[in-house]
This record gives sequence, C-alpha cells and structure tokens, in this order.
Amino acid sequence: MIRFNSDYAEGAHPRILEKLIETNMEQTPGYGEDIYCQRAADLIKEQCGNENIDVHFLVGGTQSNLTIIAAALRPHQCAIAAISGHISTHETGAIEATGHKVIELPTEDGKLTAAQILDVYNNHQNDETHEHTVQPKLVYISNPTELGTIYSKTELMELSKTCKECDLYLFLDGARLGYGLTSVGNDLDLPLITEYCDVFYIGGTKVGALFGEAVVITNQALKQDFRYIMKQKGAMLAKGRLLGIQFFTLFEDNLYYEISKHANRMADIIRDEFTKNGYQFLIKTCTNQQFPILSNVDIAKLSEKYSFLTWQRVDDYNSAVRFCTSWATREEDVLQLVKDIK
Amino acid sequence: MIRFNSDYAEGAHPRILEKLIETNMEQTPGYGEDIYCQRAADLIKEQCGNENIDVHFLVGGTQSNLTIIAAALRPHQCAIAAISGHISTHETGAIEATGHKVIELPTEDGKLTAAQILDVYNNHQNDETHEHTVQPKLVYISNPTELGTIYSKTELMELSKTCKECDLYLFLDGARLGYGLTSVGNDLDLPLITEYCDVFYIGGTKVGALFGEAVVITNQALKQDFRYIMKQKGAMLAKGRLLGIQFFTLFEDNLYYEISKHANRMADIIRDEFTKNGYQFLIKTCTNQQFPILSNVDIAKLSEKYSFLTWQRVDDYNSAVRFCTSWATREEDVLQLVKDIK
Amino acid sequence: MIRFNSDYAEGAHPRILEKLIETNMEQTPGYGEDIYCQRAADLIKEQCGNENIDVHFLVGGTQSNLTIIAAALRPHQCAIAAISGHISTHETGAIEATGHKVIELPTEDGKLTAAQILDVYNNHQNDETHEHTVQPKLVYISNPTELGTIYSKTELMELSKTCKECDLYLFLDGARLGYGLTSVGNDLDLPLITEYCDVFYIGGTKVGALFGEAVVITNQALKQDFRYIMKQKGAMLAKGRLLGIQFFTLFEDNLYYEISKHANRMADIIRDEFTKNGYQFLIKTCTNQQFPILSNVDIAKLSEKYSFLTWQRVDDYNSAVRFCTSWATREEDVLQLVKDIK
Amino acid sequence: MIRFNSDYAEGAHPRILEKLIETNMEQTPGYGEDIYCQRAADLIKEQCGNENIDVHFLVGGTQSNLTIIAAALRPHQCAIAAISGHISTHETGAIEATGHKVIELPTEDGKLTAAQILDVYNNHQNDETHEHTVQPKLVYISNPTELGTIYSKTELMELSKTCKECDLYLFLDGARLGYGLTSVGNDLDLPLITEYCDVFYIGGTKVGALFGEAVVITNQALKQDFRYIMKQKGAMLAKGRLLGIQFFTLFEDNLYYEISKHANRMADIIRDEFTKNGYQFLIKTCTNQQFPILSNVDIAKLSEKYSFLTWQRVDDYNSAVRFCTSWATREEDVLQLVKDIK
Repeated sequence: MIRFNSDYAEGAHPRILEKLIETNMEQTPGYGEDIYCQRAADLIKEQCGNENIDVHFLVGGTQSNLTIIAAALRPHQCAIAAISGHISTHETGAIEATGHKVIELPTEDGKLTAAQILDVYNNHQNDETHEHTVQPKLVYISNPTELGTIYSKTELMELSKTCKECDLYLFLDGARLGYGLTSVGNDLDLPLITEYCDVFYIGGTKVGALFGEAVVITNQALKQDFRYIMKQKGAMLAKGRLLGIQFFTLFEDNLYYEISKHANRMADIIRDEFTKNGYQFLIKTCTNQQFPILSNVDIAKLSEKYSFLTWQRVDDYNSAVRFCTSWATREEDVLQLVKDIK
Repeated sequence: MIRFNSDYAEGAHPRILEKLIETNMEQTPGYGEDIYCQRAADLIKEQCGNENIDVHFLVGGTQSNLTIIAAALRPHQCAIAAISGHISTHETGAIEATGHKVIELPTEDGKLTAAQILDVYNNHQNDETHEHTVQPKLVYISNPTELGTIYSKTELMELSKTCKECDLYLFLDGARLGYGLTSVGNDLDLPLITEYCDVFYIGGTKVGALFGEAVVITNQALKQDFRYIMKQKGAMLAKGRLLGIQFFTLFEDNLYYEISKHANRMADIIRDEFTKNGYQFLIKTCTNQQFPILSNVDIAKLSEKYSFLTWQRVDDYNSAVRFCTSWATREEDVLQLVKDIK
Repeated sequence: MIRFNSDYAEGAHPRILEKLIETNMEQTPGYGEDIYCQRAADLIKEQCGNENIDVHFLVGGTQSNLTIIAAALRPHQCAIAAISGHISTHETGAIEATGHKVIELPTEDGKLTAAQILDVYNNHQNDETHEHTVQPKLVYISNPTELGTIYSKTELMELSKTCKECDLYLFLDGARLGYGLTSVGNDLDLPLITEYCDVFYIGGTKVGALFGEAVVITNQALKQDFRYIMKQKGAMLAKGRLLGIQFFTLFEDNLYYEISKHANRMADIIRDEFTKNGYQFLIKTCTNQQFPILSNVDIAKLSEKYSFLTWQRVDDYNSAVRFCTSWATREEDVLQLVKDIK
Repeated sequence: MIRFNSDYAEGAHPRILEKLIETNMEQTPGYGEDIYCQRAADLIKEQCGNENIDVHFLVGGTQSNLTIIAAALRPHQCAIAAISGHISTHETGAIEATGHKVIELPTEDGKLTAAQILDVYNNHQNDETHEHTVQPKLVYISNPTELGTIYSKTELMELSKTCKECDLYLFLDGARLGYGLTSVGNDLDLPLITEYCDVFYIGGTKVGALFGEAVVITNQALKQDFRYIMKQKGAMLAKGRLLGIQFFTLFEDNLYYEISKHANRMADIIRDEFTKNGYQFLIKTCTNQQFPILSNVDIAKLSEKYSFLTWQRVDDYNSAVRFCTSWATREEDVLQLVKDIK
C-alpha cells in the first residue's frame, strides 16, 4: 500500500535525523533558550529580511494557532477565517476553548478577500448594537490554504492594507508554507509575508521535520509575554533544542525549499496525469495537494493499491479525493500511480 | 561546564534514536493511530497488568496535566495539589486557563496525605455555603514529587481509599516516574499505581525520550472522548508514531528502568558525598534530584565548573541547590564533582 | 416619541411592583433559598405538570444561556443554533467565552428543523476525523424565535425525537415564551415543552417583570450542581426573593398570559394595518414582534414620532423594521400609529 | 426570628422603591443607555471629583469581580488577593473560570499590605523561570474587607504607590463601601479612592438597593470596550435604568451615607454590649459586621431568637459568629439583642 494520505506519513528528512544524532549528547538549557534555537531564529530573521521580528518554536499547528490567537485577543474579540480554514473545522474548537468565536466566511477556493474582511468590519462598526456582537480583531488565513491554493502578492497586500485600515491583525498559518513559496505561479516570499502579516508561522511538521512550527511575530503589540502564553498552553517544549536543530537544518542550505519543490513536482505529475485522462478537479492547485474528482468505482479500484483521502462527496457516483505528496514521496510510486490512472 | 540543571539537558537515549532512524521511511497513519502507538500501548497495558486501561501519548507534562484535568472536571470543580506541585507553581496557570481552581495544600516534603484530602473534602461538605466555593473533585500528586520524594505503597493506598470515599479522582503525575519506581525504598510498581489511580502518566521527556508522556486512564468515567480533548488542546501529535516508537523502545527491554536506575545511582553518589562532608539537605531523597544546602561562597565556587539550580534561599549566607542527574549523566563527571565537593 | 423598540422599555407590571412593596421589609435568606422562590417554583412545577423538574431563577437571558450551556457541555462539545439565534449573534460571544463553539445553521424563519439537526449529527458521526471536529451535544432553539415565529407541537416533537436519537440536549430559550404560548395558531403549552425539552426558560425580563428568567431543568443529567455554576457565572442574585416574588406574581393568576395576549393583540393591529396598506413583511408573525418592509422615506417619516428598530436592509430603497409591543403598549399609541401608517 | 445574617435580608430602602414606582411607565432605551444611568453616572463622577472616570452599572458583586478582572488581564496574568478575599473563597472559582489564577496571601485582618504585594512582585521578577509562573498584574482588595476592617488613607496610598511601581492594577471591591466610608476612624472618601485605585465599585446590593454595583474605572487602559465584556458575561441588564434609578436615589441626597451610618451605629451597639460583657472578638471592627466569639452554649441559646452566621470554629467549645446590620436593622431589635446578651 502506497500512502498519499498526508504530508506527515513518514518521519523526518534524513539530514534532520543526522543533525539530531550529531548533537544528541550536547548539554543545552531547556525551553528554547539554547544555541540551536538562537541560530535557527537568526537564520529565519535573515531570510525574512528583518532583525526586529520575534521567532518562537512550537510543536504543532493547532497548538500554534490557539497560542497565537489566545495571546492576541481580548475576551470579546474574535478571529475571522474561511469556512474551510483549519481553525474553523479541524481543531475540535481549540480557538473557542480559549474563549474566542471564529467568524467563518464562505469561500470557494479556501481564500479570503479584502472585500470580505471589509464587509465584516463595516457590518460590525455600523451595527447599533455592536457591543452585543463579537468584535473582529484578527484575520486568519492559510497559505497554501487547506485546498492547496495560494495567495498572490497582490491579494496578500490588499488583505494587509484592509487589516491595517480596520485595526485587525493579519495572521498567516503557514503549516504548508514551503509548498506555497515554491509552487508555480507564486510571487510571495518570506520578506513579503513578514511585511504584510502581523504574525505567521513556517510549518515544519508537514514539510520534512519530525514536528515543529516556527512562529514569526512582526507586530510589536503581539510580542509581549508570548513565551508565558506558550508555557500556559503546553506549547513550550522542554527539549526546545530539538526544534532549533530542525529549523536550522531546514533553513541553512535551502533544504526547506528543495523538499517543497520536490513535493510540488510529484503533485504536478499526478495532477497532469488526471487532467490528461479527462478528470475534473474540485479545485486546481499547484501545490502538494491535488483534488481530482473520481467515480466511486475508480476510488475503489485505486484504493486497492493506494491510500488517499476521500475529501468531499460530489454526487451519488463521484467524490473529490485528495492526493498529498511530500519530501518523502518517491517518483517511482508516482509513476506507478500514473500508470494506474491510465 | 558540566550541567546538572535538569534531566532534559541532552537529546534522547541512543536506542531511541536508532529506532527512529530505523523506522523513519515507513508510512503510517497520523495522530497516534499507527502500529507503533498500538504496540507501545499494548506493552504498557501488559506491564500495568490491566487490559482495560486506555493509553494515550502526549508530548509534554504541562500539556498532559491541562488536558487530563480539563477532560475530568466540570466547570465548578477544582483540583487539589501540593503547594509545591507542578500545576500549582510552574505551569503559568495552565489549569486555571482551562477554568479550574487549584487548591494548594501546604507540605514539607512535596507529598499530600490522605488526612489533608479528607479535611478539604469535609470542610467543603460541611460548609453551609458550599455552592459558593469550588467543589473538590480531583487530587493531583506527583511521584516522585517536585522535591524528589516518593510515595510508599501504604501512602498511595490510603490516598486512593480516601479519594474513593470522597468521590475524588486521583491523578498521579509521573513525569519522573522511572526514578521513583527504581529508587531505594520504593515499594510501588505499575500494577499498584494502575490499581490506586484513576489516571496517571509515565514520563518520557525527563526519562530518556526526546519528549513524550504516556497517559494511562484506568477510570471508565475519564475515558470517554479523551482524544477530542487532546486534539482541542493541541496535544495530538501529527506524527504520533514518534511517541509510540519511543515508548515501545523504552518498555520493550526495560530500558526505562535501566536508565532510571543509572540516574538514581549517580544521584546517590552526589548525595552521599555531600553528606559525608557534613552538608545539610533541604530534604533527603533517593531519586535523581538532590537538594544540598550550600553556602553562597560554595555555590559561587562550584558554579565555575558546574551548572545547577539555586532552588531556595535558606538564609543570608546559604541556599538549597538542586543537582539533577539523568540517563545521560556520566560517572566521570559525578566523580569530578565528588572531588570538588571535598 | 412613542417607543416600539423593544419589550423592555418600561419598568414592570404594576402588580409586580405592588408585591415587591408589600414584601419589602420581610427578612428572608438570600440566594434563592427563600419562601417566595419556593412558592414560585412550586407554581411553575404545577403548571408544567411535573413535580420532578428543577426550577432556578436567573436575572437575564444571556446569563441564562451561558450558564445553562456551560453546565451542560464538556469542553469538546458544542451547541447548534440558528444563524439568527440569540447566542449566535447578540451575546458578544458569551457561549464561546465559556469555551464552546456554536454551530450556526441557515434558516429563513429563525427556526431549526429536525432534518437539519440530523444532518449535522450524521456529518459528524460519519466524519473519519470526527475527533478533529467539535462534537454536537446541545440544540438551542428560541420560542418565539428572534424573528417572532413559533414552533408547532409537531415541529418541537420532531426536534425532541431527533435529539433523543442523537443523544443531544434540546434547550429552548423562552425569553419571550409568553408571547408564543398565547399567539394565534400556537398549539404548545408548558407541559408539552416540559416533555419535549431537556431544559428551557420562561422569560420575565421581556414579559412584564423588572428582570428575571425561570430556568426549568427536566433532564436529570443536567440538574446536578446547577447552583454552583450559577454562582460561578455571577448568576445567583443575592436578594433572590426578588425573582421569586416576580414569578409568583406572574403565575399565580395567569398574569403572565394576560400580559402576553395584550402585547400580541397590539402587534396584530399593527401587522394588519401594514398588510391592509400593501406593505410586505420580512416574515409574517403572530407574536409581539412585527417586521414590515418600509421604504427609507417612510422610515424617516415614521421616525419623527415613533422609535423602532431598523432590522435589515432589503435593497437600496427599502429596509425591514421591527415594531415590538409589550404588556405596557397602550392601545391609543397603536391606534395613532395605525392612523399614521395610512 | 430576627435575622442578623446578612445585609441583604430585606428588599430595598423605601425611597428607592418610590422612585422605581414613580418612573415605572416611562419608556427608556435599554442596556444602561438611558437618562437615569446617565444622571447617576454624573452624580458619581461629581462625588468622585473626576470627570474622566467611566461609570458602569452591574447587577451583583461576583458578576462585577469577574467582569472587571476578565476585562483587565491577559491570559497569563493573575490577581493577587487576601486568602479571605471574596474572589478567593466565595465565588465558586468565578475568576479561575475566566482563566486566571488568584494568588492568595495570608492575612489576619483581611487586609493586604504594600510589603506583601512588593514581595510577590519581586519573587516573580527574580524567578529565573518567571515565564513558567503566572504574572502578577492586578491587586484585589475589599473595603471594608470580608472581616469588616477598613483601609486607612495611608495604607491605601502605599498600596497604590507599590502597585504603580510594579505596574499592577489596584482594584477595590466596595460591595460594602458605604459602611467603610462612614465608620469611626475612616479617613478615606470617594475622591481619594478614585485617585488611588485603577478600578473600584460602589456596592448597592448590600447597602440599601434591590441590587446593583456601580463600577468606576479610573485607569484609561481599563476603559476600552468594557461594555462588550459586560455583555459577554451576562452583566448588562436589559432594563438598565433600574440600576441608574437606584444609584441616583442613593447618591442625590446622601441616602447612601445615611443608610450606612445607621447600620454602623446598630453594629456599634452590638459590639459594645458584647465587649462590656467580656466577650472576645475574632477581630474588632467599626463597620456593620461584628465577629464576637461565643460559647457553643450561648450560640444555641441566642439562635432560638436570632439568626446569625457561625463564622469560624475557635476551639471545641467556642466559635466566632457574625452579626450583620443594615439600613433595615431596627433599633428595637438591637436593644432586644442587647438585653439578651446580658
């Protein structure tokens, strides 16, 4: 059985393991105050083109989302997210459990628009009973989105502009950031994201690390006491160095981007083959998640050899499925799949 | 500089790393639903002598504490803990952040007694205004405690009996459980702890793993939907197999106990040397944490070569310090320290 | 200026004030443990036709909603409500602030259907990643709804049946219950609501009292320790007798129903007059809230003499407005309005 | 049976009821945006000698405490209170339920000292692991305290100074403020409290109103969006005018102070009679709560005719009890009690 279920089916990229072995017996302080976290943070600051950002290393995505949002909002404030956003649907109410509503906006492609944000903001402002409704304060976007799509530079700039005008924080969930930054058609990079967002994170768990997300805080107002909130939410790893070592390895020689490019290339092959054979897609993407629409018969047949997610029912006879690639996806497995698609 | 600061200064025991490397390219389902978590859980069930327990793998201690307590309590219920308990003092209010008060009881040695618990329970019951006070529902103990002491079988049995009589859950934080179970004078083991406690965890982070705590739920009432709460609290690791692999390695050949014994033996040497040289202790322990009282002059001198925690001021001239050993502590470093103590 | 803004623009029905004056100098225990709360609870039990229900008196609607839902749910569970439901839109995230998500369902008339509930339940059950999504556990409905519509006996019975099948609590917010129970076409009564719902409340604030909501708990599972949660949420009035006295007065001689009927009759006149003059309605109701659609010109003109809510923009030239009547609405004011509508 | 249990055993001062009747049929906006709330706020601003304070009217004490503290703190911050403080002991964990720990300090007389606060602050600052402990941010005091004692001007000034130096908010719970401000030996007044505190409230529930607490916010940082948090916590009364009317009545002709003085005078008689007859006190106070120590035999005898609280066991034969007076305490009842004490 070949798994295309997720981008976290294997362990870590071998170079990460090597580095962990190499440093294993060194003694370091705990809780992210070691030299490796320091170096990784410096590297990220450099690549973001900004010395004045704060970098923190957390273990996972849900944890990062709830810690960041809990740190950013006062009790009456809420986050705005796409209805398909991870915090809207797949975190068992993690944000609400910290006391905050998530306003979920409709979207076809997983992306939010500046116009949508402005609408929410204006509706709240103009509501005579605005004190009876939650106050919008943070916009949550994912890049790539949960549907594999990416924001363009213009789109992100406009979101950022609107957020600034409306006094909203812009928070970008980059659990799969590498796949976005290396995909065909992408015109974003770390310095631009640093410029446009108040806070974001660079995902490791889904991009070759054992685990880990590098949270970057650019807005001064969000920096204060962030480590307290990390600790409170169980998000401060005792052996924090493990995160530093992994991110250092990912970023010192562009490993992060190489890995991501490979995964995208594997996904491109899958997408192109389905396309060639006349399949429709739930949505077309250039990143490591592909959502072809298959007949139930085809799904059953492919499932004998491959494991993948049935994403969404289309009609009685067809469903959209998800094929997901990663640093570990073997070209030979993809070519086998290509053969079987035919 | 030789570090005796903590039991998490190094990476992981080499056999754990080996196993991670060996399994690295295998594809598994995420979120703890893989074969390694299954095997590790089976091993733990076997060693606990009980098939009907639930085993979950979480990343860290604060995370485990807040997840367990949030899962166990209704909003008006509280935990009872020693004033020195980890949840009382060193988790940045993690329990309160889930909505629950921690009643902190005084203790000299870090341990709670059945009589103390009964008192709290009776005071609440007899209070005419009991609805105006939080309802005791869970007793949190650590074994070993944060002061390195351990509960005897009789003490734990009595606590358990009192908790059952008062309809309280007994929760044992075993972040350093290995050091307790292998220490001189210990008469507890996993089957007894399984019998006496409603929920407990077997610590990995501080006992040779990269990270990880194995939560064991014995009380049926606490089992339902625990994985939902894990997910909500950011405590469900995407690559859950990493936890399964580590705990399987720790328990398949008694590595967990060997590691712990070594650390205790190293600590014994340190304790005995300080004792021989006439030093007093904040408290005497047989586990991997030692709390000798040193003069400020001695502290300054030892600090040139060794790193350790200043635990508590005793008077203007003396403080209790903590020396902490682990699986990774080298006998030669301890002997060097012994020489320097003299 | 004549106010049709709300059903809480005046103080209390004079008989309530009389009773408060009459009992003012009596000494009673606090916190709802007085003879008047006892009597009012007995009266409500009698009128609900059930001795085994618990009755608690709280001050307001948002307070009742958040206290009930916090008492009912475990951390990973959520409430389901209409998108127009009070907890969805007009309580500043009060439910989320207790840690729980509100799943908001679309509705034209403010009502939820059994089919919608079943869908939500089934989608959750069938989701392979159900542990990653909040668990539905409580259905929140209002009767009358925020749009003035009411549930029929059949509709409520079906909702109840579905909830039982899906192990969901059914919670009815009766902030305006009187207006519903006395409206044209209603076939519900207190015994039926008691039978169908796990918990509900009888609104006082909007039906002639100074303030107050009588919470009725019928499901045994929801009864335990409710007073603890009330106290914790600031919902236990020190001079609890004020609530007992008011509800006793409202229910001892059917005052509650007389008041409600009067308000409905006043609303009927308004509705019929708008209808006669060819106005459309956002929705047609038989209770004390009327939602005619007026042109902006008409709104401006009527606003010179009357105060009422602009509810919802219809198009560039027209908006739905809300006229709200109460026990205190004077027939002469309504007739004046009728004249002005013409 | 004559009740000396509490200061909320009766309804409201007759002048308040009169005013409620007089205004009953007036139509006003809801939620505290009426003319009466405006007038009451203006009156309070005038008496506090400060135009730049915000005044909000809430229903009860627990509600005010939890709303204020939830509005003031970030998630990792805590309140500091006396162990006898209302938020520490008698609010069923209301503060913790909003996510915040209460650090409870020992006290004999219910009061906190500036030195105690400084200690807590310094211990936190100097703790190397300060990010692992909750951050002190707000000091909660009651005046009079739960033990009937009062702060002097000097004591409050020193607390204020220390709080400012340590960047802590000073919050004064004035549930019984009237009794404090009119007691023998008091040298505080509203302008001084306004100067020294960041936020405080003037209690109505226990000082002659049906219910109500007037929250005064003096610190600019605490003002923003307070009404949102009120709404979220169920603390925004629909018929807010009821609060405005009551506080206007209490403050327009010094009724608040007259009432309080009467209660204190009644308490003085009781205290003096117990003293004359050789009784000891748990603590000596000049406000409306008296805590004589009685033998169990005396308690049983007095309980035949009077109702009062058994406050605290002293030894096997004696307990401290609480006699509480109010605006409604009749001199003849006190004289009867005096006779019976003899």
